[in-house]
Amino acid sequence: MSTALIILAAGQGTRMKSDLPKVLHEVAHAPLLVHAMKSGAGFDPERTVIVAGHGAEQVAAVARDFDDRAEVVLQEKQHGTGHAVLCARDALQGFTGDVIVLYGDTPFIRPETLEKMAEARQTHDVVVLGFKASDPGRYGRLIMAGDVLEAIVEHADASIEERAINLCNSGVVCASNETLFGLLEGVSNDNASGEYYLTDIVAIARARGLSATAVTCDETETLGVNSRAQLAEAEVAFQARTRAEALDNGVTMQAPDTVFFAHDTVIGRDALIEPNVVFGPEVTIESGARIRAFSHLEGCHVSRGAVVGPFARLRPGAELAENVHVGNFVEIKNATLAEGAKANHLTYLGDASVGQDTNIGAGTITCNYDGVMKHRTEIGARSFIGSNTMLIAPVKVGDEAMTATSTTVNKDVPDGAMAIGRADQVNKPGMARKLMDMLRAKKAKRLKESK
Amino acid sequence: MSTALIILAAGQGTRMKSDLPKVLHEVAHAPLLVHAMKSGAGFDPERTVIVAGHGAEQVAAVARDFDDRAEVVLQEKQHGTGHAVLCARDALQGFTGDVIVLYGDTPFIRPETLEKMAEARQTHDVVVLGFKASDPGRYGRLIMAGDVLEAIVEHADASIEERAINLCNSGVVCASNETLFGLLEGVSNDNASGEYYLTDIVAIARARGLSATAVTCDETETLGVNSRAQLAEAEVAFQARTRAEALDNGVTMQAPDTVFFAHDTVIGRDALIEPNVVFGPEVTIESGARIRAFSHLEGCHVSRGAVVGPFARLRPGAELAENVHVGNFVEIKNATLAEGAKANHLTYLGDASVGQDTNIGAGTITCNYDGVMKHRTEIGARSFIGSNTMLIAPVKVGDEAMTATSTTVNKDVPDGAMAIGRADQVNKPGMARKLMDMLRAKKAKRLKESK
Amino acid sequence: MSTALIILAAGQGTRMKSDLPKVLHEVAHAPLLVHAMKSGAGFDPERTVIVAGHGAEQVAAVARDFDDRAEVVLQEKQHGTGHAVLCARDALQGFTGDVIVLYGDTPFIRPETLEKMAEARQTHDVVVLGFKASDPGRYGRLIMAGDVLEAIVEHADASIEERAINLCNSGVVCASNETLFGLLEGVSNDNASGEYYLTDIVAIARARGLSATAVTCDETETLGVNSRAQLAEAEVAFQARTRAEALDNGVTMQAPDTVFFAHDTVIGRDALIEPNVVFGPEVTIESGARIRAFSHLEGCHVSRGAVVGPFARLRPGAELAENVHVGNFVEIKNATLAEGAKANHLTYLGDASVGQDTNIGAGTITCNYDGVMKHRTEIGARSFIGSNTMLIAPVKVGDEAMTATSTTVNKDVPDGAMAIGRADQVNKPGMARKLMDMLRAKKAKRLKESK
Repeated sequence: MSTALIILAAGQGTRMKSDLPKVLHEVAHAPLLVHAMKSGAGFDPERTVIVAGHGAEQVAAVARDFDDRAEVVLQEKQHGTGHAVLCARDALQGFTGDVIVLYGDTPFIRPETLEKMAEARQTHDVVVLGFKASDPGRYGRLIMAGDVLEAIVEHADASIEERAINLCNSGVVCASNETLFGLLEGVSNDNASGEYYLTDIVAIARARGLSATAVTCDETETLGVNSRAQLAEAEVAFQARTRAEALDNGVTMQAPDTVFFAHDTVIGRDALIEPNVVFGPEVTIESGARIRAFSHLEGCHVSRGAVVGPFARLRPGAELAENVHVGNFVEIKNATLAEGAKANHLTYLGDASVGQDTNIGAGTITCNYDGVMKHRTEIGARSFIGSNTMLIAPVKVGDEAMTATSTTVNKDVPDGAMAIGRADQVNKPGMARKLMDMLRAKKAKRLKESK
Repeated sequence: MSTALIILAAGQGTRMKSDLPKVLHEVAHAPLLVHAMKSGAGFDPERTVIVAGHGAEQVAAVARDFDDRAEVVLQEKQHGTGHAVLCARDALQGFTGDVIVLYGDTPFIRPETLEKMAEARQTHDVVVLGFKASDPGRYGRLIMAGDVLEAIVEHADASIEERAINLCNSGVVCASNETLFGLLEGVSNDNASGEYYLTDIVAIARARGLSATAVTCDETETLGVNSRAQLAEAEVAFQARTRAEALDNGVTMQAPDTVFFAHDTVIGRDALIEPNVVFGPEVTIESGARIRAFSHLEGCHVSRGAVVGPFARLRPGAELAENVHVGNFVEIKNATLAEGAKANHLTYLGDASVGQDTNIGAGTITCNYDGVMKHRTEIGARSFIGSNTMLIAPVKVGDEAMTATSTTVNKDVPDGAMAIGRADQVNKPGMARKLMDMLRAKKAKRLKESK
Repeated sequence: MSTALIILAAGQGTRMKSDLPKVLHEVAHAPLLVHAMKSGAGFDPERTVIVAGHGAEQVAAVARDFDDRAEVVLQEKQHGTGHAVLCARDALQGFTGDVIVLYGDTPFIRPETLEKMAEARQTHDVVVLGFKASDPGRYGRLIMAGDVLEAIVEHADASIEERAINLCNSGVVCASNETLFGLLEGVSNDNASGEYYLTDIVAIARARGLSATAVTCDETETLGVNSRAQLAEAEVAFQARTRAEALDNGVTMQAPDTVFFAHDTVIGRDALIEPNVVFGPEVTIESGARIRAFSHLEGCHVSRGAVVGPFARLRPGAELAENVHVGNFVEIKNATLAEGAKANHLTYLGDASVGQDTNIGAGTITCNYDGVMKHRTEIGARSFIGSNTMLIAPVKVGDEAMTATSTTVNKDVPDGAMAIGRADQVNKPGMARKLMDMLRAKKAKRLKESK
């Protein structure tokens, strides 16, 4: 059976107090919408329709960036969830499979949960996702008789007995394309808020003699985001789950609560992550690598035995081979360091390659930008770059080459050669004392004058 | 009605184990005393009298720094709160308005709470501030009959019924100057500890036929600090409240628990604050600015669209205009960066101005200190400062000027000119290999000799 | 009475998913085994026998590093705690004192608790350590009659009444060497798991007419580590206890939850530790020193009045005298800074000494590594090292000496002298504008060609 996703993503999110559409706010460096799309992606949907409204262009761009086949339809005014789903009808014209309706502000529904819904669809026409609420509050309640979903009762309409039920409605539903839109035609906005509720399809299905059921998931999966405080809670939930999984997989962390993962961070067994490490998107750390305290990594790869930090920054395109050392106050961007290479202090390597076992001295800078364009620096194997070396790209340093301390390299250095370029030191006896005396006298004079 | 504040700030705070007077310990970079003064400041007091004792000079200096009209009186020995307030009598001689007694170690009473007390003073002679305690413990209990405060019963003297009351005494009181000191004359030290209790004025007022009432505030407002553990709790309470307010106002924070605000931090809507950011005092961040992870800011201004960090330090006097970028391992002190200026790597800009769209290369340093005095560096607009440029202040670089990599600039650079000053690179073929061989042989020899 | 320790440390710790033996995983930078050895060390044991199994060589190395008299015996296969203790029999042949059995994965038993056990041994043949469990779960229960330990009942065998008992078995026992091994001979593996349980010695002792008792400790002391999640919990427990102690001792911390101590960190009263500070092993901070935010310290000493950070890294061998300042993006390794010396920005001092009141300019680097060996740099008192000075070790700078900005120093600088070595600045009028125009034209041409 082929499947389509409809993801409702039109809301403005007024309570976010933001110019950014709500579904584009991020948890673990992925927009909420992308988390929702990932929930469904494990499902391999044939079609994905995003119902956008506020900031539709931005929403569309993010959706297509994650899945270029995603279709985006516009819900110009928001008249309820039923109305939102109807906006996707034309886009799904002729589609004959099942449709799952998800929410762009509900990031944590697990692929396994959606699979259970698809399974339940084998035996029922409409499947609703419910969750056991620890505090059911004002959620709609699912009234079950055995595995049959008899009704969804809104809190306002619920009897005392019904309010005692803690199986609540998540809003996520699954039905065949034909059934879903057939039922939605029957939904009216004849209610207090004048909106069309998707939820009403259950009652209509039952009235038409169709069968409905519910699948239950963990309450944490249905966590929705309506304010920045809830966004922060979602982040906390994500980080807690991810840290626990990492520990479980054999990652060593002295203080897991101070390590921030992105949605796609991959870390190998027996990797050591010290306190206060932040992972941006697209980072992979191999087994046995060590990420020391106060390090910041994005878009990079760290191989087995490599040591990063403390106070290191790896930016996108940083590729560290085995046993590479990147030390304090070092920035690596779009650069590969071959096995055993070291850059331990106060260095910037951008748009560069460094060969095996080469040592980069403190204060080395690849001058990769000429004010208009960026250029590459290539350094060979077993070379020694002296402290305070400036490498004016494009430039190449060969294998087993050296640069003397304070050399500015703007010509290639052949294999085995030493590049040197600096003024000789001259000592001027007594001059330091004389100069300091002069400066002190000047200061005293100024102080006197300023009185 | 004019108002005076008396703030009791004489205690040593033995449990703090500190040479610093207790009320000068800080929460969110403001001394406890200043928090108490801020509570009352919203009230616009005509007079403020600080009762100091231990470390009175330091206390006086801090009080006057916050409000130069604050008067400081000395309580040489500490004989209880009643005695402490009496120390302020002479200072308030002739004052005819209301007096509110606050505590220098109780930082969180809200201005709104004090306003409610002033209002209650319209209809009662003495107003006491109470709080509903979740765990009343050993606090004195307020015995109310309707809105009349009948008595304050110390825990030791309370009956079982009275101990069941959870409305407790905060110690904060309000009365007219005349009433307050009239009542205090009646207070004796005929009790177990031999101290004069301010609280006793309620019983005396009742005995003299005056009316008393209580105003109730949130328990968190009356949090007092007697140990460093309580100081840490106060900090936690302050940070939690401030983070929640920031989220509520539309600030984006991935991990609010890792962001530390000062008492006066101002952050605009849709500003993005990444994990592990510390704000010292006097920081303002405009809407849409981005403060990246591991940044430290004090006394600075960051404008709309600017990006700071990761690993950036802005010190007092750093002024970043719109779209300025300050990157990793960069320190800015007493320096203005005009719109679009960039300093992205390993740089120190101190006592400097940088013009619009100017790019500061990696490793640039303003040498602002000659060992005796500090000097300024001025850099124009649309200029390009090459990597490893040293700018020996005082010095000026014009508009659309350049400095070549590794140039040490000690003369002004005119508009459009390029400053260059470095030794030419010379390559010595084979010399790197020869030198390394020599060094290795030397090491081997030493190892051999040391055996 | 002389005492011996047997520490069981043979388990693989499968649930750790690690190549490192379980007891070598660290809490606060000390292996679990070392924590257990420290518990017993306060006791001054005459003999210490570690029973190792998985990774025995590594375990032995760590044990001997902490106490070079520690004996390590091998338990090749793990047949239960009774079997493990028996592995220590030969090593203790002829020893006539008391033996305490501890666990290498149980790091927090307090020396005071072990003393209480030794005391109880005066009057009983066997002493077991129990703890009052808040959730007794599946622990064995201690059945007491007065101060007599009647039996240890495993959870599976316990009656309902027995399960209601919350005094649980920690597994720690104390008996004379002779008694312990005499009883162990009676222990059989005739049970469900086919293992020999140390615990069974209590029943055997009772059957033989010997007396047994229990000493009770706090539940937190018996926290054992079987997974990385439990390791993280142990770390949290350690840090919480240590932070509370530091506050109690008069250390100022704005955000104690963000300060990470090592097992041996020593901090003086009124020292100020800002948020986000990480201490590695062997750090001592004197009273009144200030460690600013985002600092990382290992193996170093910071004296009274010194200021470190923000963003500073002190590595092993960093010795800071009184009033030294080490500022942002500065790394100090194996270097002493005398009173009042300052290194405030972007500096690396390795294998160096800096004299009193000397100022190290921004961007200074000690070039201590020539690619093969490390060398020392010595700088005198009251000297001024200009920005971007490279000090090629071995080299000496005298007292009251100076180095001009950008000088590369490879010859000693005498007292009072100034070392200078840099190319003069030349301004080329109009050349910056010309060069930028050329680069822009080049870029435009490339863009055109690439279309």
